[in-house]
Amino acid sequence: MAERQGTRLVEPRATLAPAAELAARIAGLQAGLTGGGLDAALIQQNADLFYFAGTIQQSYLYVPAEGEATLFVRKVAERARLESALGAILDLPSPKDLPALITERYGALPARLGLELDVLPVVSFRRLEKLFPGTAFEDVGRAIVRLRAVKSAWEVERIRASAAVADEVSRLIPALLEEGLTEVEFAGRVEAEARRLGHEGYIRMRGFNQEMFYGQLLTGESGCVPSYLDTPLAGTGLSPSVAQGASFRRIGRGEPIVFDFVPVRDGYMADFTRMYSLGPLDASLLRAFDAALRVQEAATAAARPGAACRAVWEAAQGAAADAGLAGDFMGHGAGQVPYVGHGIGIELDELPVLTGSGLELEPGMVFALEPKFVLPGSGAIGVENTWVVTTDGVERLTLAPDDLVVVS
Amino acid sequence: MAERQGTRLVEPRATLAPAAELAARIAGLQAGLTGGGLDAALIQQNADLFYFAGTIQQSYLYVPAEGEATLFVRKVAERARLESALGAILDLPSPKDLPALITERYGALPARLGLELDVLPVVSFRRLEKLFPGTAFEDVGRAIVRLRAVKSAWEVERIRASAAVADEVSRLIPALLEEGLTEVEFAGRVEAEARRLGHEGYIRMRGFNQEMFYGQLLTGESGCVPSYLDTPLAGTGLSPSVAQGASFRRIGRGEPIVFDFVPVRDGYMADFTRMYSLGPLDASLLRAFDAALRVQEAATAAARPGAACRAVWEAAQGAAADAGLAGDFMGHGAGQVPYVGHGIGIELDELPVLTGSGLELEPGMVFALEPKFVLPGSGAIGVENTWVVTTDGVERLTLAPDDLVVVS
Repeated sequence: MAERQGTRLVEPRATLAPAAELAARIAGLQAGLTGGGLDAALIQQNADLFYFAGTIQQSYLYVPAEGEATLFVRKVAERARLESALGAILDLPSPKDLPALITERYGALPARLGLELDVLPVVSFRRLEKLFPGTAFEDVGRAIVRLRAVKSAWEVERIRASAAVADEVSRLIPALLEEGLTEVEFAGRVEAEARRLGHEGYIRMRGFNQEMFYGQLLTGESGCVPSYLDTPLAGTGLSPSVAQGASFRRIGRGEPIVFDFVPVRDGYMADFTRMYSLGPLDASLLRAFDAALRVQEAATAAARPGAACRAVWEAAQGAAADAGLAGDFMGHGAGQVPYVGHGIGIELDELPVLTGSGLELEPGMVFALEPKFVLPGSGAIGVENTWVVTTDGVERLTLAPDDLVVVS
Repeated sequence: MAERQGTRLVEPRATLAPAAELAARIAGLQAGLTGGGLDAALIQQNADLFYFAGTIQQSYLYVPAEGEATLFVRKVAERARLESALGAILDLPSPKDLPALITERYGALPARLGLELDVLPVVSFRRLEKLFPGTAFEDVGRAIVRLRAVKSAWEVERIRASAAVADEVSRLIPALLEEGLTEVEFAGRVEAEARRLGHEGYIRMRGFNQEMFYGQLLTGESGCVPSYLDTPLAGTGLSPSVAQGASFRRIGRGEPIVFDFVPVRDGYMADFTRMYSLGPLDASLLRAFDAALRVQEAATAAARPGAACRAVWEAAQGAAADAGLAGDFMGHGAGQVPYVGHGIGIELDELPVLTGSGLELEPGMVFALEPKFVLPGSGAIGVENTWVVTTDGVERLTLAPDDLVVVS
């Protein structure tokens, strides 16, 4: 590993996915291909390439149902060889050469080939249809999403390292917070600290049209603004172009300050939310914050291997109702969303979604649990942590104390 | 406008697209539909929704070849009505209701419907095929990209306002720069200033797998690292997950510091690059910087309405060759890219691409021209500005002086 990182083509402090890690992931995909009667899969999307190959250099990863996978790299092969622990990395002069190279290496073209049809644009798909005229294509995107939902111990350590960035940033916030700053100016100060700590910036989401920038820093009434996003909180953003996140609103005293933040390191994310205020908050907000903590307690108590997502969601709803805040839980009115958490890893919108679904939790699944309340006229309040499902429950990965921090 | 912006659902300082602006854009699309024999288009992607409707609230914009367009909004209709100047904005309870609502409003379903097939994922496309079983679908994505390449005067003002953010940030850089900072720490300081000035953060790109975070801040040898991106410079990034941009490399004296930066305000971008150094640079770098300025001069002299992109690209290549630096121009070796600029507006990868293409420049086209040289072992150097094509030449929108700034 040291030698691979010694070159200037790879950032020396980067943590590269070991060969055994990639092999296990590819074996997981291959089991699905065999089960579905597919001959192979051709992986193209950045998040999936990073997962299976450890690199996002412009390439196609050909995974046969059995045997060694090959990464065909269009640009830059030399760099892909340093970033990826895969054994078979070949130059691809042009995508048009793919069929010939696959035939040469595997003896024949696949009759049934899996593609990430949940993310692949139609025009790109049609180009592949022309390149492989005798091949039938099927979606493997959903299967990959399901496979990626269960993290290895190595991946959990990556998410833990990412969570540590959020913990550290949250500790610095009281010193950065001032009355009269705009939300976006304050966000910029926080983001600068995150960058210093190695935040990678770009946040990957799988869903079409899904966009996110660091998370959401919302103060007072900004926390009550619903948006196009399927999130409990959103904010106005700086214009309708973004329509979420920090705005030019000035931070005042006695308002809830929501710091919803997505750290990213070495390609892995966590997700967390902490509350701050300049001076004390009124009793209704404090009551809602207390309710959020109780929802977190009830939901994590329900989360264990074999429990359906539905059970966690119902436990959360029950605790919110017990607090008399069902109508404000996970948004208010048209802004309410029917879930209390979501899977997280290489993308922000992974499985499991903690909604009324029958998907059962498994050890290694990682999710962000974000009980939040929107009190119209006052603002939003809540808590969010990232958790990994263990053999008998859940373990918390974001470690900063949950407490509301009142800055005087 | 004031009343629309008075509500808390829209950031009061946002500049909303006027009704006449949206009407002209939709008329442009309708002319293309009529010319192509299509009955209508159904617009879904955020950048295109923002362009034609002024909002990215979860919605479908139905544009008949003739007559009034309708925005069907799933979430949040109230907000879409405040953000968009369109006259017809209807609630859409579920995408499944689309055919019935279109039939009700337009009398029939379209026989031939245009979709953004260049960006729409296959799975989403197949859902629409099921919803509209009697309809034939065609791509309008490419036509939209072509339409959007020519900016209105109003759009040019938006890009000018965005460019002003870059100009202001570049002015602040000497005070933020210190020897020994990591690239990413320095980037964070700069980004914080940009946020204070209203940078919206998220940078839209249309191409599959294209990702960008603010641009690229590269020092010394980082400027020589080629990547998967089709850009002259890229850098290592913090890990193979991102594989571009700032790294943990510490900034030293006598090294070229490339500040390639994409400002975004009210949904519109500019793109620019300025050079800095701590102490003087060696003569070969200074010679290359001078060559970049001469390439900029030659290319902009060639850029006028009616000129093919090829003419601009050839003028640029000629000036680079005259300087004896053809082999280092727009990257070195395998990292070389065959273009010297790209269109820019709502997305970073717009038309016109200043490459060997026959596309002719038109008044209102906006492009970033980025002559850059990569000198192996020393670093990268160059300049980039954003320009709009006028009736008889080009006008520069990024106004900060081009000079290399030596910080002592």
